[in-house]
Amino acid sequence: MRPLFLITNDDGYGAKGIQTLIRVARELGDIVVVAPERNASALSHSLTSSRPLRVHTISEIEDCKVYLCDGTPVDCVKLGAENFCPRRPDLVLSGINHGSNSSINVLYSATMGAALEAAVSGLPAIGFSLLDFSPDADFEPSVPFVRDIIKKSLEKELPGKYALNVNIPVPTDGKIKGVRVCRQSQARWVESYERRVDPHGRPYYWLTGNFECDDIAEDTDQWALQNGYVSIVPTTTDFTAMNLIEKIKKDYE
Amino acid sequence: MRPLFLITNDDGYGAKGIQTLIRVARELGDIVVVAPERNASALSHSLTSSRPLRVHTISEIEDCKVYLCDGTPVDCVKLGAENFCPRRPDLVLSGINHGSNSSINVLYSATMGAALEAAVSGLPAIGFSLLDFSPDADFEPSVPFVRDIIKKSLEKELPGKYALNVNIPVPTDGKIKGVRVCRQSQARWVESYERRVDPHGRPYYWLTGNFECDDIAEDTDQWALQNGYVSIVPTTTDFTAMNLIEKIKKDYE
Repeated sequence: MRPLFLITNDDGYGAKGIQTLIRVARELGDIVVVAPERNASALSHSLTSSRPLRVHTISEIEDCKVYLCDGTPVDCVKLGAENFCPRRPDLVLSGINHGSNSSINVLYSATMGAALEAAVSGLPAIGFSLLDFSPDADFEPSVPFVRDIIKKSLEKELPGKYALNVNIPVPTDGKIKGVRVCRQSQARWVESYERRVDPHGRPYYWLTGNFECDDIAEDTDQWALQNGYVSIVPTTTDFTAMNLIEKIKKDYE
Repeated sequence: MRPLFLITNDDGYGAKGIQTLIRVARELGDIVVVAPERNASALSHSLTSSRPLRVHTISEIEDCKVYLCDGTPVDCVKLGAENFCPRRPDLVLSGINHGSNSSINVLYSATMGAALEAAVSGLPAIGFSLLDFSPDADFEPSVPFVRDIIKKSLEKELPGKYALNVNIPVPTDGKIKGVRVCRQSQARWVESYERRVDPHGRPYYWLTGNFECDDIAEDTDQWALQNGYVSIVPTTTDFTAMNLIEKIKKDYE
């Protein structure tokens, strides 16, 4: 039996990135697409429980139904795996995101929110992101890497409970050097809010920020990306800081 | 100088839980409150960047400004620390949430989203949650534990980069036995979506779910809570599954 992929993203079904992912996945197996009908970026692991979800179906891909949902990417995975997949998916694929989800961006990312939601359910999952925000980003150089990582995930049996955070660089010379498995760089966004005043005299605040990262050791995702490699960070849904347990026990119990 | 606390939550400023937290914190230091004006539960680490934020100020607490924001709890922490705190806060406090954020709930929780956002910025932070969803939950039995944990976090210098996930049980006999430092239980929500049809013949889907947890060893938060203890899980913003790095290197590089 061909493998079954459940596919979602956070830029919405209209984005170029998910169209590329669908094309690659269809070569390798059967697909079910359950995607947000609109852009749902930066929603992280948000979930909709206070209102019902609406879904409409389009059939623009041959032999494949596409479900467009008015919820978040996490909702798409939950609803898709439960209600719209004919069998348990072999792999959940999210992306390809327009823009980086490396380093600390994984916290805000709904591309990775969807992948981690699959992991919670024991489904192996991969979130793909390209380091180019533009709507018409060129995904073609990514295609061989995306294909290869999906194939290896099936062959090598990527464990459920974990999700791969895959980021793809856009080297200035156009040549991606290979793949590096890494840890997440420690970094932060240093924000400043630009205060403006509306025509009625009331203030409003625009988020602006700079990504600051000093943690670029050779085992990090930032190093890999800056040096022209695709970065793969295996990620977990266990947030426990095990290294702190003993100190905190001593201080608080 | 008295310590400065930045306070937020995800149930909105009108909730009983944040009022309790404000009362306890005011005994121990100066406070700045930046809270969502409405309920913002289950928004996880969501962030607002595609529209500006609106803030309005109320002055209902003596010597203290309260800022109500139309964004997410993560926005409240970012904007609050950057624009509304007179100095760098000594501790960021989030909650007290109405409902559990133990175990896997930490992923969906915007109470913990706010605390983890502080951690990203190097600010020590605590998210408090009571295991009672009801709007008129009784927070009084929590008060001595909340006070004690805040005091210890100042005295023992809880490191920035980490956030404590504190959950408070509601034992049937009313007696909380003490405090346990734990790891996050492995668990999941097993969803089913209830399909209904609206008066116009179109389907919609309500999320329903059961919390399933087999991981109740004595070092877990679920064990602590089921046995009448307050659970404290130190949490990290590094999602790397370090235990998988070698396997994934072998399989993918």
